[in-house]
This record gives sequence, structure tokens and C-alpha cells, in this order.
Amino acid sequence: MRRYRKQDFPVSHIRQLLEPGPIVLVSSAWKGQRNVMTMGWHTVMEFTPSLLGCVIAAGNHSFEMIRRSRQCVINIPEVEMAETVTRIGNCSGAEIDKFAEFGLATTEASEISAPLIDACHSSFECRLHDSALVDKYNFFIWEVVKAHVARTPKRPRTIHYRGGGAFMVAGEGISLKRLFRREYL
Amino acid sequence: MRRYRKQDFPVSHIRQLLEPGPIVLVSSAWKGQRNVMTMGWHTVMEFTPSLLGCVIAAGNHSFEMIRRSRQCVINIPEVEMAETVTRIGNCSGAEIDKFAEFGLATTEASEISAPLIDACHSSFECRLHDSALVDKYNFFIWEVVKAHVARTPKRPRTIHYRGGGAFMVAGEGISLKRLFRREYL
Repeated sequence: MRRYRKQDFPVSHIRQLLEPGPIVLVSSAWKGQRNVMTMGWHTVMEFTPSLLGCVIAAGNHSFEMIRRSRQCVINIPEVEMAETVTRIGNCSGAEIDKFAEFGLATTEASEISAPLIDACHSSFECRLHDSALVDKYNFFIWEVVKAHVARTPKRPRTIHYRGGGAFMVAGEGISLKRLFRREYL
Repeated sequence: MRRYRKQDFPVSHIRQLLEPGPIVLVSSAWKGQRNVMTMGWHTVMEFTPSLLGCVIAAGNHSFEMIRRSRQCVINIPEVEMAETVTRIGNCSGAEIDKFAEFGLATTEASEISAPLIDACHSSFECRLHDSALVDKYNFFIWEVVKAHVARTPKRPRTIHYRGGGAFMVAGEGISLKRLFRREYL
């Protein structure tokens, strides 16, 4: 599997990667165990601090690990990983070691214990910022404390879930910069 | 501008359209006024009831109208509307009537007062479900009470914001249905 060379990236700019709505892999660690799950329900919430919110259903093996450790890494895969991403989302860390099963190489994060996934284009180290909606909606609000992003490609071919086993792959780019107010860019 | 013929669509299935992360137009109405804004920070939160969360920054003219009326319509445009969508996001309803300015035809919603935008592929009528995080994060949790979706195209060419005035257009589709557990489809 490809191993991206990632570089430090400003946490206030991660919307460039998350706002288009890619499927992500969430890695976690708790008491010597680690796990990874596939997730698609997330949104950017603020630039500074760099906040994002996501739903992690309580039925997932990762849920308690993430809730207790109060941290995770959000990793963005490209289309080459689509099958692996789907397989990761269709098995449980309660039964297998997904890192071994899928041959996922990892790198230590710098601020937290959960691992960065080398085969992903971008990895964001997250600390729990607000748990107010965890009990009611399984909704976690994270602060991205460190971002690692591959230098190339600049525009990753992310995958976007459409339900029913179907994905959309990120397509062509268009720039409408000329129509933006300077302060909105 | 194109006028889509929309049909009733099950509210529990709207993730098929929203989860890929498209830029949307949010229309609102309050005390005889109406407005429309461009928005990209949203996520699906639950199937049943059909919940979605989104950030609407307090600086927007729409913010008070939406907060007070406790309702809005989330409309999904296709790439043909990209310029209009950008222009809508770079002016204020405090200064102009955006519906007149951009020639936006509308249709009355069935459950709420905010209008459906005819030039959009899909329109979701939303009622405020939970305002717990509005003050702290400008984060609104909506229940979609009625969904209107064009019969064609089945896979709209949505636009996805990447910051800096650049968008990604929804690309090719891939199906990995064979790798899914039946209960996850």
C-alpha cells in the first residue's frame, strides 16, 4: 500500500480537505488496544480553534475507546484505498486486529496516542473539545491539534459515500476565485 | 435557469445526497422577508428522525431569520449553478433581494414557510430539532420533515468547496456493494 510523505499543515486550513465531504478513517487507541473505523458523518465547525464535529455511532467497537481516550486521528484516504476502506467499515475491531488484517502501516502521532495511517493522504490529530452532545447524538466535537498532509497530490481523489454501497470519486476542479470577496478567500 | 421537477423522497434516505458533502443553498423566511445563503459546513446526524447539523455563522443576514423562524430549506445545486452559488455567497441579503438579483424561481414548501429553490436538484424542508449548540457554535440541528428530489439525474453533479475559491465537481461513481454487510446497506 502507498505510504504518503506527509508534512505539517496549518490546522486552520483543514477545511480544504474535509469540507468536500470525504469518507475518512478514524484511528484510536486506549489501554494498549487500537482500532480503526470508517466514517462519513462529519463537518468543519470553526477555523480557530480548528474544530470539527462527527457522529460515531455507539455500536462501533471504536466508540468507547474514543470516548474514554478523548482523542482520535481523522485520516483521509484516496480512491486507491476504496476497497480497504469499505472492508474496514464492514468488520469489527472486537473480532479482529484491523491493522494486521489490512496491512495498515502506521506512524506515531506527535500530540496524542492514536496512530496516523501511512496509506492515507492526510491525518489530523484530534483532542475532544466538547462532549455535550455525545450522549444524546453520539456527536463529538474535536479540536484538530496537529495536521499532517501529503505534499502531492494537492487535490486528493477522495471518495464520498452515497449510500447503498456506492461512492462518488472527487472529480474535476473549478476555480471561481474571481467572484469571491477578498475577505472570504 | 433550469427548473427541476422534484418528487417526494423518503427523509430517512437524504444521506444519499448530503453525505458526499455538497455546497448547499439555505433559504429562509421570517416576517414577510426571505433570504438565501451558501453553506458548506453540514453533516447528516441520524436516519430516523432524519437529522442534520450545520453551522450558520452569526454574521450572516440569514442567521437571525433562521434562528427566529426555527426553519429553513436546504437546497442542493448542480455545477451549472456554480457561479450563481458563489455570487449568492458573496453578497448580503441585508443589501439586496437575492431572489430577484439572481432570478431564482421558487415553489412553496408544504410544511414550512421558507421557499424551495426550483433551480436546485433537491430541497429539504427543515424544522429546528435542537438549538443546544446555537449560542456556542452557531450549530443548528435540523429535522428534515419533507424531502423533494429530482428524478433525474439520479447522481447530481454537485459542487464541493475546497477553500480559496476552488470547488471540486462530483466525479465518477463506483459501487462496492458486494463488500457490504447486508444490514449496512
